[in-house]
Amino acid sequence: MSAPQGHQPVGVAAEPRTSPDPVILGQEPSDAERARTLATGRVHGTLGTVAREPQGTPFASVAPFGIDEGGSPILCISEMAEHTQNLRQDPRCSLLISEVVDEGADPLAAGRVTLLGTAAVVADDEREAAKAAHLAGNPHAAYYVDFGDFHLWRVTVESIRFVGGYGRMSWVDPATWGAARPDPVSGSAAGAIEHLNADHADSLLLIAQVTGGRTDATSASALGLDRYGLDLLAHGERGTGRVRVPWPTEVATGPEIRTASVELVKAARAAQA
Amino acid sequence: MSAPQGHQPVGVAAEPRTSPDPVILGQEPSDAERARTLATGRVHGTLGTVAREPQGTPFASVAPFGIDEGGSPILCISEMAEHTQNLRQDPRCSLLISEVVDEGADPLAAGRVTLLGTAAVVADDEREAAKAAHLAGNPHAAYYVDFGDFHLWRVTVESIRFVGGYGRMSWVDPATWGAARPDPVSGSAAGAIEHLNADHADSLLLIAQVTGGRTDATSASALGLDRYGLDLLAHGERGTGRVRVPWPTEVATGPEIRTASVELVKAARAAQA
Repeated sequence: MSAPQGHQPVGVAAEPRTSPDPVILGQEPSDAERARTLATGRVHGTLGTVAREPQGTPFASVAPFGIDEGGSPILCISEMAEHTQNLRQDPRCSLLISEVVDEGADPLAAGRVTLLGTAAVVADDEREAAKAAHLAGNPHAAYYVDFGDFHLWRVTVESIRFVGGYGRMSWVDPATWGAARPDPVSGSAAGAIEHLNADHADSLLLIAQVTGGRTDATSASALGLDRYGLDLLAHGERGTGRVRVPWPTEVATGPEIRTASVELVKAARAAQA
Repeated sequence: MSAPQGHQPVGVAAEPRTSPDPVILGQEPSDAERARTLATGRVHGTLGTVAREPQGTPFASVAPFGIDEGGSPILCISEMAEHTQNLRQDPRCSLLISEVVDEGADPLAAGRVTLLGTAAVVADDEREAAKAAHLAGNPHAAYYVDFGDFHLWRVTVESIRFVGGYGRMSWVDPATWGAARPDPVSGSAAGAIEHLNADHADSLLLIAQVTGGRTDATSASALGLDRYGLDLLAHGERGTGRVRVPWPTEVATGPEIRTASVELVKAARAAQA
């Protein structure tokens, strides 16, 4: 996709327009991990089924979902709903999971993943686990999950299309999707980034300069973080560019982000000295 | 769909649990009008196309859209996108237009409409009108609408499934959909309702008692309004129920809502005297 490029991060319009190569140190999340993480955030689910009339036309409908441990979507749908009647006739379907974008933001900037496969009613002996998986993703179903005309359905995923906003897209292998785990710090990241930018700008600059090798940098801010590392945006004579540094060890909690951040700063100070 | 019933409006938990029949006076919007209005609000668009692999599986994807005067969705999609390649092979598709629900709200409470039909690239002599229609719904496309690999596509709508949240659903006739117009006061309604509830509770009560015949009412609040009328929620000995009263004449602007509200109050006072 020949997508829009060259958006400047907010607030750097006065910086030089050169774009130095990003500095990428250490592991980054795989697309499978990004997609599994996306599915646990503020998203909406859309189901594609095969319409009965006009027969064969794809039918897109709203479908809240949960994702079970192995990455299969679990739906809780009424026998009276169109999409259920469609699935009863043809089990082929896909579930689109897409981030809710802020009001006024470009819908194509949303991360999303389409899971294609076939759906089947969950067997009785798997019902409790499937119910828990659905409710974890869609707590509102507590109201109707045990209604007689609602059933839990599992989508067996056969192929996966991931689009991480503009310019990042791939087909993800189903086995890799199944084995990937959502990022355990996705819920803590925003608060941690805010704190780093508000109170530790000097430390971020030191990490960019020493660990990231951006010796020209005169300022740096935190862009994002995940279980594997921290993303900075460094500004300096060479231009404005991304600097990715790994945590000393993988993080899984907010306090571990804090400890890892302190260690990054210590390591940069030691290397500088 | 055997849907959840009996949700109590917020703040009336202490009222009697009886539910008097709603009082419905005058015209209400048709489902076609509700659906056309919904499509102009804060919504997201999801396209269902026929996947090439696994062949025939419905493929759900993010698709910003506009709606032209006659009710046809206008897409602006890249030749490199999956859904475009799908449409090149099989033009059958649907566009789901669904309201964005507040964070934490039940996704099934969203209003939504699925437009099923076939897509085709817009002919050259219709391109300018289609471009304007797309941009009216998706201003972000201004950035890429003229890129060489993007084309405008029109979906010719063959059938329409409307779901107005829990319990309200229907198939809408395509000709009726095409002729319906979005509610001209949908953008003014929220502010007007807030004003009515904050400053004119006595007038609302009078309308409920006199015009609506809810002589038992001890309080009333505005629930909603549209081009045809005003919806109140009246509380009293008979219970809590909806009272729908028509404007003296159809309204199209915020000032007209104000004038019509004043006239409703005057008429109620005159009838009471």
